[in-house]
Amino acid sequence: MYSYEADKQEILTRLRRMEGQLRGIQRMVEENKYCVDVLTQLSSIIAAAHRVGEIVLQDHIQGCVKNALSQDENSETAIQELMEAIRRFGRA
Amino acid sequence: MYSYEADKQEILTRLRRMEGQLRGIQRMVEENKYCVDVLTQLSSIIAAAHRVGEIVLQDHIQGCVKNALSQDENSETAIQELMEAIRRFGRA
Amino acid sequence: MYSYEADKQEILTRLRRMEGQLRGIQRMVEENKYCVDVLTQLSSIIAAAHRVGEIVLQDHIQGCVKNALSQDENSETAIQELMEAIRRFGRA
Amino acid sequence: MYSYEADKQEILTRLRRMEGQLRGIQRMVEENKYCVDVLTQLSSIIAAAHRVGEIVLQDHIQGCVKNALSQDENSETAIQELMEAIRRFGRA
Repeated sequence: MYSYEADKQEILTRLRRMEGQLRGIQRMVEENKYCVDVLTQLSSIIAAAHRVGEIVLQDHIQGCVKNALSQDENSETAIQELMEAIRRFGRA
Repeated sequence: MYSYEADKQEILTRLRRMEGQLRGIQRMVEENKYCVDVLTQLSSIIAAAHRVGEIVLQDHIQGCVKNALSQDENSETAIQELMEAIRRFGRA
Repeated sequence: MYSYEADKQEILTRLRRMEGQLRGIQRMVEENKYCVDVLTQLSSIIAAAHRVGEIVLQDHIQGCVKNALSQDENSETAIQELMEAIRRFGRA
Repeated sequence: MYSYEADKQEILTRLRRMEGQLRGIQRMVEENKYCVDVLTQLSSIIAAAHRVGEIVLQDHIQGCVKNALSQDENSETAIQELMEAIRRFGRA
């Protein structure tokens, strides 16, 4: 089961863009760029990862969680799992 | 100016490992893996980016910021820049 | 509509404890306590607010959101609102 | 040693305002207000605590840390302590 079919291309595009950013940071470090500029690019990658995560999380709630809750089947497990994902994600 | 010379190899190793993780997440999405597992891997990338950022930040404080403060030259600018980096980074 | 009836006493107890901590921080500042100790207490208040928020959020999902999704009534609104709460909360 | 003398009144004013907000949240919970509104107020308290922390942190860097670094006395300890405070604070 997965719920992000409709956003799959957007998610993959964002992940590929993050890969490009990450290679950019490697180049910056190899070329001894200024620490604060490296930190700014790392913040930008983290923000991008949060954005992708929000898309996956929203799809998950609208798909998997909604199914579990509406069928009242495994709904307790679905909510526990969702809370853990939110917690892990919020603290990451 | 940059302050992470001593940790350069460790930083690059961590960034390359993150690139591997990022490609792993792309594969997971292509293969329609479960949303929560994708979220877990994204949390792991975010944690890894925070860890690299902490190394760069600590080196920056021990190097660039320490120099600016001890020479009392540009120390105001160095502190403002540091505070912005911490803020941006803490919120990312 | 609210969903935290069962946890109401625990939530109130935690909020009152936070109020005590907050007054403790005021005293520390009035008595010129060391900056890092003030910061540690502020981190502790933030962690406590996150913990209360997690309880309210879990109750909200198990109550209000579950109702909306299972009746497929206002389910779109409920999910949008939940996503905004998670975003605001994760970034706070 | 403490470094927030110049901002002491502002810090105390902000802490008292947070105490007022916290009592407001207690009232909301006692009156069974909507979960999402309670969460919004909790986010607002967290943001306020971060703002106070940023003031204390900036004063600490400009005062205690600057002193330690410029005298190159306990500078290693000052930086370790600062990094821990940033880490604890960023994750809180």
